[in-house]
Amino acid sequence: MSSKQQLIDQVIQAWHALQQKTPLIQCMTNSVANNYVANILLAAGASPAMIDNPYEAEEFTKISAALSINVGTPTTEQTQAMLISAQTAQQHQIPWVLDPVGYGPILKWRSETVDQLLQYHPTIIRGNASEISALAGNHVQSKGVDSTLNSQDVYEQARRLLQHTDCVAISGVSDYIISKQFDMVIQVNGGCHLQPKITATGCALGALTAAYSAVASPAIAALASHLHFAIAGKLAYDQAQTVGSFNIMFLDYLHMLDDNLIHQYYSIDCL
Amino acid sequence: MSSKQQLIDQVIQAWHALQQKTPLIQCMTNSVANNYVANILLAAGASPAMIDNPYEAEEFTKISAALSINVGTPTTEQTQAMLISAQTAQQHQIPWVLDPVGYGPILKWRSETVDQLLQYHPTIIRGNASEISALAGNHVQSKGVDSTLNSQDVYEQARRLLQHTDCVAISGVSDYIISKQFDMVIQVNGGCHLQPKITATGCALGALTAAYSAVASPAIAALASHLHFAIAGKLAYDQAQTVGSFNIMFLDYLHMLDDNLIHQYYSIDCL
Amino acid sequence: MSSKQQLIDQVIQAWHALQQKTPLIQCMTNSVANNYVANILLAAGASPAMIDNPYEAEEFTKISAALSINVGTPTTEQTQAMLISAQTAQQHQIPWVLDPVGYGPILKWRSETVDQLLQYHPTIIRGNASEISALAGNHVQSKGVDSTLNSQDVYEQARRLLQHTDCVAISGVSDYIISKQFDMVIQVNGGCHLQPKITATGCALGALTAAYSAVASPAIAALASHLHFAIAGKLAYDQAQTVGSFNIMFLDYLHMLDDNLIHQYYSIDCL
Repeated sequence: MSSKQQLIDQVIQAWHALQQKTPLIQCMTNSVANNYVANILLAAGASPAMIDNPYEAEEFTKISAALSINVGTPTTEQTQAMLISAQTAQQHQIPWVLDPVGYGPILKWRSETVDQLLQYHPTIIRGNASEISALAGNHVQSKGVDSTLNSQDVYEQARRLLQHTDCVAISGVSDYIISKQFDMVIQVNGGCHLQPKITATGCALGALTAAYSAVASPAIAALASHLHFAIAGKLAYDQAQTVGSFNIMFLDYLHMLDDNLIHQYYSIDCL
Repeated sequence: MSSKQQLIDQVIQAWHALQQKTPLIQCMTNSVANNYVANILLAAGASPAMIDNPYEAEEFTKISAALSINVGTPTTEQTQAMLISAQTAQQHQIPWVLDPVGYGPILKWRSETVDQLLQYHPTIIRGNASEISALAGNHVQSKGVDSTLNSQDVYEQARRLLQHTDCVAISGVSDYIISKQFDMVIQVNGGCHLQPKITATGCALGALTAAYSAVASPAIAALASHLHFAIAGKLAYDQAQTVGSFNIMFLDYLHMLDDNLIHQYYSIDCL
Repeated sequence: MSSKQQLIDQVIQAWHALQQKTPLIQCMTNSVANNYVANILLAAGASPAMIDNPYEAEEFTKISAALSINVGTPTTEQTQAMLISAQTAQQHQIPWVLDPVGYGPILKWRSETVDQLLQYHPTIIRGNASEISALAGNHVQSKGVDSTLNSQDVYEQARRLLQHTDCVAISGVSDYIISKQFDMVIQVNGGCHLQPKITATGCALGALTAAYSAVASPAIAALASHLHFAIAGKLAYDQAQTVGSFNIMFLDYLHMLDDNLIHQYYSIDCL
C-alpha cells in the first residue's frame, strides 16, 4: 500500500507530464459544458478537441491521447459518435473516462447509452453519488442532474463497478476514489461549497480526469484531477466568495497550480 | 389592486421560496445561452437541468417544478422535445415559460413552432418588444434576434396575448408586465445599458422567470425575476462599467440578492 | 502600395463604421465557441445572430450584413445550413468568412464540407497555420484543432488560396494577411501568449473578421479584426497574467478600443 507521500509524488509526476506532453484529449460533452470544459483543460495543461460527430469519431479517437465521454445533453448523432469512439478507444487501448450524467430511471435514453458504453470498459467512471449509486444497481431518485446522496455513503457500492472499469471516482463534499490498483479508498478533501453552484464543474472534472489518464495510471489520474480541482477551488475561495468572481479565480488557480501548491495544500485520507 | 409595497412583499416571499426549495427547472434553451442560463439559475437559487431531447422530454418534465422553452437556435430534435414538454407541462399543470426568440416573418420555422407551442398555453410569455409585438399580430421587422421597438410602445398590444397565456413580460430599458392577475401594468426600472451588450441575458431572464413560476403566481414570478435582474444589473454597474467585468459582477449580485437589497433598490411603477 | 499610416487610417474608419452601423452578422459556429463569439461581437460593436438551421438559413442570410461560417463541431443539420447560407451569400454579394477548423486528412467530413464551401467563394478565409497550409494543398498533421506549424512559415503558401477567396488571414504569434487588394503581405504583431490558452479565440477572430467585412474591403476587414484582437490582447495582458482574469480583461478592452488606442498600440509590418 502506498503512503500518502508516495501518492502525492505520483500526482506531481502526473502534473509535470501533463504540462510537458499537453496531450490531445477528445471531449464529447454536453452543450452546457463545452466551452467551460475546453477552457479548464487548456488552463490545466491539456489540449482539448470537442469532436463529437459520428463521421469523424473513429479517426479522431485513434490520434487522441485520451477520450472523455459525458452524456449530459445527448443528441442522436452525438450518441452514435460516443459509441464509435468508446469502441475505438478500447480497441486501440486509449484510456477513456465515462461521466454518466443523470443516470437513473427517469432519464432512460442516456442510461441505455451508458449501459452500452460500459461494454467498452471505460478506464475510469466519474460521477456524483446519485449517478454512481444508480450505476451500481441501486434505485436512486436524483434531482435532475444533481445528486441527492452523499459521496461518503456510496463509495462502498462503487466497488461493484470495478467489473466494468479500473477506477471509480465519486465527487461530493469529499471525493472518493476506488480502484483496482489500490485496496484502499482514497478520500480527497478541499474545494469549496461554491463549486456545485457553478454549472459543469463535474463535467470539467471528468474531462480533466481523462487528460491525466493520458499520462498516469487510472487511480493516479483520478487522484491528480480531483486534487487539481480541490486545491484550485480552495485557493480561489480564499480570494473570492461569490460565484462569478470565484469561477474566474478558479480558472486562474487551475492554471497556476505547481509542485509547491500541491505539496502545500493537498488533503487526502486513505481509508 | 395591490400597492407597490404589497407587490414587493410578495416578491420577497417568492425569493425566499426560491432559496428554500431550489426548484428543479427544465431548460430547453439555445446553444448560445445554455451555460449562461445554467449559471444564472444556480446563482439565483434554482436547480437547472438542460434536458432537451425528445426521448427524455416527457418523463423529465413530469418531475420538474417548472419548464423554460427558448427557441433561439432550434434543431429538429430539440423542436420535437419542446412540443412534447410543453404538452406534458400543460397536462400536469406544471408552469412553463415561452421565450419566442426571433419570432417574426424572417424566421418562419421557429415562428411556426412558437405558434404550435401557444396551443399548450404557456404560463408566461417573455420576450423583447419586437417579438411580443410580432406575436400580438403586428408586422415587425426585427434586427436578427434584437429588438427594433421600445418596450413602452408595445405593452398595450401585449394584452391580446392574454388569450394564450396568464402573463406577458416585455424586456427593454424598462420592463413591462401584463397579467390576468392584475388590471394594472407593472413597470420595472433598473438594470443598465450594458445588459443588451451581453449575449443571452434575455434568455436567462426567461429561465429565471420559469424558476420563480415554480414558487409564485405568474405575475409575481415575472415581477420577481425582472426585479432580480434589474437590481443585480444596477449594483453590478456601480462596480464595473465594462462588459467583461460587469458580467462577472452581475453573476455575483444575482447570487448576493436578499431582502434588504430588494427593499433598498427596487423601482417599479404601476400604470 | 499603401503606407502603414494609410492602412491604419482605413482600420480606424472601419472601426467607426462598425460602431455606427452595428451590422447584423449571421454566425454559424461551433458549440464550444457560440457564447464567446456572440459576446465578443457585442463587445466589439457588431450585432450577432447564431442562426444555423437549414430551414431558416437562406432567409436570414439575405437580411444579414455579413456571414461567418466555422466548421468546428458540425452536425448534419448545421452543415446543410452552412451550404445554403454560403450559396445565398455569394448570390446576394454578402461578404462571408470561412474558418476551416481542423481542415486536414484526419477530419474528413468537415474537410469535404469546406471543399464544397470553397465553391461559393468566401470573401475571406481565416485559420491557423496548419489549416491554411492543408487548405493550400500541403500534407499537414495538426494536433486536433490546434496548429503544429508557424504562421510565418506558411503565408507564402496561402497565395494559392487567392483563386478561391479575396483574402487569407493566418493567425499565430504574428498574424499574416494576404489579399488581392495589396501586393504586400501585412504582418500584425501584438496579442499575448495566453490567447491560445483560451478556447475559441480563433473562432471569435473569424467572426469579428466577418463583422468588419460588412463595413470595409476584405483586406482592411481582416487587418482591422486582427489589430482589434492584438491590441486588446496586449492591453489585457498588462492588467492580468492568468487565463481566467485575462479573458475578462480581454473582453473589456475589445469593448474599450477606440481611435487613440489603435493609434497608440498598433504594430504592423508590410512585407
